[in-house]
Amino acid sequence: MINIGVIGCGYWGPNLVRNFSTISECSVRKLCDTDTGRLEAMAVQYPAIEMTTNFSDLIEDTGIDAVVIATPVRFHFEMALQSLMARKHTFVEKPMVRNVHEGRVLIDSAHKHGLTLMVGHTFIYSPAVRKVKEIIESDELGDIQYVAARRLNLGLFQKDINVAWDLAPHDISIIFFVLPDGPISINCQGKAHVNPDIEDITSMVLNYSNGRIATIQSSWLDPNKVRDMTFVGSKKMLVYDDLEPMEKIKIYDKHVEIPPHYDTFAEFHYSYHYGDMCAPYIKQYEPLKRECQHFIDCINSGEKSESCGLEGLKIVQVLEAASKSLKDGGGQVILESI
Amino acid sequence: MINIGVIGCGYWGPNLVRNFSTISECSVRKLCDTDTGRLEAMAVQYPAIEMTTNFSDLIEDTGIDAVVIATPVRFHFEMALQSLMARKHTFVEKPMVRNVHEGRVLIDSAHKHGLTLMVGHTFIYSPAVRKVKEIIESDELGDIQYVAARRLNLGLFQKDINVAWDLAPHDISIIFFVLPDGPISINCQGKAHVNPDIEDITSMVLNYSNGRIATIQSSWLDPNKVRDMTFVGSKKMLVYDDLEPMEKIKIYDKHVEIPPHYDTFAEFHYSYHYGDMCAPYIKQYEPLKRECQHFIDCINSGEKSESCGLEGLKIVQVLEAASKSLKDGGGQVILESI
Amino acid sequence: MINIGVIGCGYWGPNLVRNFSTISECSVRKLCDTDTGRLEAMAVQYPAIEMTTNFSDLIEDTGIDAVVIATPVRFHFEMALQSLMARKHTFVEKPMVRNVHEGRVLIDSAHKHGLTLMVGHTFIYSPAVRKVKEIIESDELGDIQYVAARRLNLGLFQKDINVAWDLAPHDISIIFFVLPDGPISINCQGKAHVNPDIEDITSMVLNYSNGRIATIQSSWLDPNKVRDMTFVGSKKMLVYDDLEPMEKIKIYDKHVEIPPHYDTFAEFHYSYHYGDMCAPYIKQYEPLKRECQHFIDCINSGEKSESCGLEGLKIVQVLEAASKSLKDGGGQVILESI
Amino acid sequence: MINIGVIGCGYWGPNLVRNFSTISECSVRKLCDTDTGRLEAMAVQYPAIEMTTNFSDLIEDTGIDAVVIATPVRFHFEMALQSLMARKHTFVEKPMVRNVHEGRVLIDSAHKHGLTLMVGHTFIYSPAVRKVKEIIESDELGDIQYVAARRLNLGLFQKDINVAWDLAPHDISIIFFVLPDGPISINCQGKAHVNPDIEDITSMVLNYSNGRIATIQSSWLDPNKVRDMTFVGSKKMLVYDDLEPMEKIKIYDKHVEIPPHYDTFAEFHYSYHYGDMCAPYIKQYEPLKRECQHFIDCINSGEKSESCGLEGLKIVQVLEAASKSLKDGGGQVILESI
Repeated sequence: MINIGVIGCGYWGPNLVRNFSTISECSVRKLCDTDTGRLEAMAVQYPAIEMTTNFSDLIEDTGIDAVVIATPVRFHFEMALQSLMARKHTFVEKPMVRNVHEGRVLIDSAHKHGLTLMVGHTFIYSPAVRKVKEIIESDELGDIQYVAARRLNLGLFQKDINVAWDLAPHDISIIFFVLPDGPISINCQGKAHVNPDIEDITSMVLNYSNGRIATIQSSWLDPNKVRDMTFVGSKKMLVYDDLEPMEKIKIYDKHVEIPPHYDTFAEFHYSYHYGDMCAPYIKQYEPLKRECQHFIDCINSGEKSESCGLEGLKIVQVLEAASKSLKDGGGQVILESI
Repeated sequence: MINIGVIGCGYWGPNLVRNFSTISECSVRKLCDTDTGRLEAMAVQYPAIEMTTNFSDLIEDTGIDAVVIATPVRFHFEMALQSLMARKHTFVEKPMVRNVHEGRVLIDSAHKHGLTLMVGHTFIYSPAVRKVKEIIESDELGDIQYVAARRLNLGLFQKDINVAWDLAPHDISIIFFVLPDGPISINCQGKAHVNPDIEDITSMVLNYSNGRIATIQSSWLDPNKVRDMTFVGSKKMLVYDDLEPMEKIKIYDKHVEIPPHYDTFAEFHYSYHYGDMCAPYIKQYEPLKRECQHFIDCINSGEKSESCGLEGLKIVQVLEAASKSLKDGGGQVILESI
Repeated sequence: MINIGVIGCGYWGPNLVRNFSTISECSVRKLCDTDTGRLEAMAVQYPAIEMTTNFSDLIEDTGIDAVVIATPVRFHFEMALQSLMARKHTFVEKPMVRNVHEGRVLIDSAHKHGLTLMVGHTFIYSPAVRKVKEIIESDELGDIQYVAARRLNLGLFQKDINVAWDLAPHDISIIFFVLPDGPISINCQGKAHVNPDIEDITSMVLNYSNGRIATIQSSWLDPNKVRDMTFVGSKKMLVYDDLEPMEKIKIYDKHVEIPPHYDTFAEFHYSYHYGDMCAPYIKQYEPLKRECQHFIDCINSGEKSESCGLEGLKIVQVLEAASKSLKDGGGQVILESI
Repeated sequence: MINIGVIGCGYWGPNLVRNFSTISECSVRKLCDTDTGRLEAMAVQYPAIEMTTNFSDLIEDTGIDAVVIATPVRFHFEMALQSLMARKHTFVEKPMVRNVHEGRVLIDSAHKHGLTLMVGHTFIYSPAVRKVKEIIESDELGDIQYVAARRLNLGLFQKDINVAWDLAPHDISIIFFVLPDGPISINCQGKAHVNPDIEDITSMVLNYSNGRIATIQSSWLDPNKVRDMTFVGSKKMLVYDDLEPMEKIKIYDKHVEIPPHYDTFAEFHYSYHYGDMCAPYIKQYEPLKRECQHFIDCINSGEKSESCGLEGLKIVQVLEAASKSLKDGGGQVILESI
C-alpha cells in the first residue's frame, strides 16, 4: 500500500484526490492547502483523510510514501525538491518547473535517490492521443509534414505565467509523444492585451530538421473553447478534436499528388486526391485515472514513467525557448540537445 | 445600356457573365478566352454573346464600354492598362496587380481618362460583412483589440502566386472595410511543402498603431474548408463564420473585466463576464450580383466604387510587404503611407 | 435537337430553364407564365427565348417537342394531359398529380402515344442518394429494419397541399429508390396550427410486409432546416444528412448483437457493437442537371425514365393513403397493388 | 445531520452517493447491493461507509433517516413502501413505479407518516430546464402550440421496461415542469426490433385541451446520441439541445404571421417573420447536486419537493396510457384526472 499526500486543493488537486482514491494499491492520507476553506470542503467528502495547512507537516510525515504537487507553477521546484530530498516519490503538475536548470536539479535528485519523478501531462494518457500515436506509427498518414494545434478559450488567466506556459504544454507533450523526434528551434510571437506583462495570445512554431513544422496557437481571449490538432501527412490528413464527444479523431484520405519526375521546364501539375473520411472507434476511459494508476505502477515496478522528469524537462526547454523568442520579437531560438 | 466584354472564362469568369446577364442596365456582348473548349461551352448557354480568342478583338471593339478581367493575376496589369487606354471602364479580379507600382499606374490611367476602375473584392458586398461593419461602427463590441482570420482548405494550388496572395486578399479586404484605419507594419511566416518555391501555408500579422493586431492564417493544406474571423472587442466578441448556412455572425457578450485602478502591490484580479450569445438576422442576397450592379452604378453615376483602385492598391501593398517579410524569415516590414 | 417549352417561371421553373439551357442536345424555345413580371425578368437573362402568357400558345406550337411543367400541383394533371395529347414528351414536377386515378390516365396516355413521361423526383439523381443505394445493395448494412426521415423548416406554406404532399415526396421517392420493395400500409398523423385545414406538421409511417417500418416527419414549423435520414440495418447504421456540405453519408459500424439461441428461461443478454464511423467520398455534381439530361436521354433512346410515370404514381398512392389516414385519426390504410 | 442509506450501486447509484457525500447536512452511512463486487469497488472509494448485501439490514437500521432507491424499476414499489413503513424519508429513481395504483399507495403512505417522498426527475433541477421554464413563463415565446422532443441513442436496452418507460420520463417531466397544464389524452406507436416483446423505438403524442400537441420520440436504435426539444410558440421558437456544451438554449425570433382578419373569399396570405437568434447565458451547476440538496432541504423544512410523489405519479400515468395505446395500435387513450 502506497500512502499519498497531496499539496494543493484548488482547481485541479481535487481531481487527483478523487482518482487516487479509487485505486486499491494506494491510499490518500493527507491533504495540504493554505486555504482552510478548501480543506473544510474536502473534509466533508473525504472524512478519512487528514488535513493540514503546513507543507512541512506533510513532507516530514514518515508515513507518506509519495507526494503529489498541484500548486501554482512558481512553487513546483522548491516543493518537488523538498519532497525528493525527504525520499518521497514525487508527482508534479505540468509545466514541471520554470526553466531547464530547475528541471535538471530535480531529475538528478530523483535519480540519486532512486525515486519515481513524474509530471502530470495528462493528455498522453488519453485514449484519443494513444490512438493518434498508433495511427502515425502505422504509417497510414505517411510522413508528417505539418502539425497545427489550437487551444483557445476565454480565461482562466494565470497570475504567474503567460498563456503559452499555461496551455501549450498540453500540445507540446502530445506532439512529443506521437512524434518522438524533437524540434531543433522555436519561434514565438504573442501579445498582451489585458495585463501589460503577460501574453494572453501566443503563436509558437516548432521547426524540425526534416523541414516539418508544428504551429501552436494559444489564447485566453477567444469566445469559444477550441482544442484541436491537424496532422498533414504525405498520404493522409488527420484531425484530432478533443471537444468532439464521439468522433475525436477523423482521418481524411486526402492529399496532394506530386508527379514523380518534376520537369522544371514544363508547367507543374499537381492533382488532388479526395477520398473517404474515417473516424476510428476509441475505447473510452478517464485519462487522469490511467495517469494516476501509472504513477503507482511506476513506483511499484521501478520503471520510468511515460511522462518522466526528462519528458517534462524537454517541454520546459521548448517553453523557455519560446519565452526568449517572444522577447526577441519572434526570432528563431535554437534548442541545445538535452 | 452599357456593353460589356469579359476576358477569362475559367473558374470565376462564368459567375461574372451569369450575374452581369441578369442586370437590365447592361449587356454582355463579347467573351474572350484562349481555350476554345471553354468558349464553346459558354456558347451553348449564351447563344446571343459573341466569342473570341483574341484579346485585341475585344479591346478594339468600339461597341464595348466596359471590360471585365478574370484571368490569372500575372495578366491583370497589362490587360487592365490596355483596357483603360482604350477608354473602357475596367473591372479587375483580385488581387488587382503584382505590386504597388503597377497599381499606381492603373489608378493614374483611370483618373486621367475619367474611367471607373474597380477590383473584385466580392466579400465587401456580402450581407454578412456589411452587418459586421454595422455592428463594429455601432460600438457594440467596444474597441477592437484583436482580429483572427482563417481561410483554409485543400487546394486549389495556384501556379503563379502563393497561398497568401490567393486567399488573404479576401481577409485583408474585409478587415480594411470594417476597420478603415490601416496597419503600420506586416509580419509573415510560411512554408512551402508541395512546391519548393510557392508557400502553401502562411501566417500573416497586421500591426496597428493603437496596439491592435490582426492575424491571417492561409492554407492550401487543410482537410477541412474553414472561413472564419474572430473580432475581440473590449466589450464583446464576434465570430463571423462564412460557412455557417444561417448563423454567419455570432456576438458573444463575453469580455475580461479589468479593475479601474491597478494596484501593483496587490495581486491583480480579473473577472470574466459571460453572457448571452446573439446571432443577428441577416438578409440574404448574392454578393456577386450586388458587386456587378455596383460596377454598373459607378459607371453611370461617376462615383467612386467601394472597392476602387485605391482600395485594391492598399491590399496589394500589404501582400507585397508580406512577401518581403516571408523572405526575411518573418521580420517586420513597415508600410509607407499611400 | 429537342425543342423545349417550359410552363411555370415561379420558384422552381428558372432552375429547370437554367439546366436545360446548358445541355447541347436540346434548346429551350418558349417560356410560359401568367405573371408578365416573371417573364420580363427571364427575358433579360434569356434574350433568345420566346415568352408567352398563354399555355395554348405553347401546347399548339408544332416546333416544341417536349413540355416541362413547373406549376402548382392542382394544374399538373390537366396540363400534362393536354401536353401528351398534343404528342409532346412531358416532364411534370413532383408530386405528379392529386390522386391515383389522375396518374393512371397520364400513364395510359403516354403509353398510347409512345411518349416519355417523367416526374421531377430530383433527389434520386443526386450523387448522395445513388451512393446510399449502392451501399444498401452491397449488403454492408445488412437487412434494413428501420428508416427514419426528417424534412423540417419554417415555411414555405403551400396554398393547395399540406406539408406531407409538399415535403414527403422527396423522402418517399428516396426510400422507394434505395429499397424497391414497397410498403403494404400507411399511417399518418398531423396537426394544422396556422391554417385550420392544411396540416403543417405530419408524421407518416410506412409499414412493410417483412416488419420493417419507415417514419417520415414533415414540418413547416421548425426554426431549423433539417433534411436527414437514418437507416438502421442488422449489421451497420447509416445517416444521410443532405445539409452536410462534405460528409453527407456517415456509416456507423454499430449494431446490437443478438445471441443466436434465445433462451426464454434465462435473462436475455444483448451486447452492443461499437466501431468505426466512415464517410465515403461522394463525387459532386448537380442532381438537377443530371435529371434534365436524363429526360433528354430518355426521349432520344425511348427507354423508361428512372422516375417514370409509374414511379411518380406509386408516390402519389402513398400520399393519397396518408391523407385518408390523417382524416381517420391515424388509422392504418392498406395499399392496393398497382 | 440526516443519515442516508442507498440501495443500488449499479449505473446510477454511485452518482447519488458521490453527490450526497459532498453535502454537509447529511451523511451517507450504508450502501446496499446484491453484487459484492460493486460493494468492494465502492469500499475503496468510501472507506467510511458501511456495506451490506441485505436490504432489511438497511431498512431496519434505526440510525438511517432516509433511504435512496436506485434499483431496476420492478423493485421500486416494494422497496419504497418498506422504506416509508419503516418511517424513513424516501427518494426513488424515475420512473417512480409501474402503474398509477402503486404510485397512489406510496403517496398515501408518505402522507400518513408525514415523510418526504421524492422522485429522481433530475432534469427539472438542471439550469437549462429552469431557464426554459423562465422564458416560457415570461411569455417571450407566446402561446406554446407545439413541442417536439427526441431522446435517441444506441442502447442501453433495459430488461424490464421498453424504451418509452426508460427514456420518455425525462421528456415528460420537463414538459410538465415548464407547461404545468397537463395533456388530456395520449397516443403511442412503436416497434420492437431486437426483442419481440420490448419496444426499442416509440413515438408518443400528448394531446392538450387547447389544441397543443407534444411529440416524444424515444429510441435505443440510433447511431447518434440525441437529446433535444423544440418549442414552437405563437411569437418565437425555442430549441433546447442538452448535448450542446455551451449554447443549450436557442431562441429564434421566427414565426408565421397570420393576418388579423381572415378573408375566406380571398386567397390566404401568410408571411414569415425571420429574426435574430439568441442563446441566453446559463449559469452552470450539476443538476444532481441540486436535486440531492433539495431532498435534504425538503426533509428539513417539511415542504413538498418539486418532484414529489404526485409529480412522479402524473408521469407514470402518461406512461401507463402510452403502454395501453401501444397495445391498441396507436389509438387515443384518455387520461383521468388525478
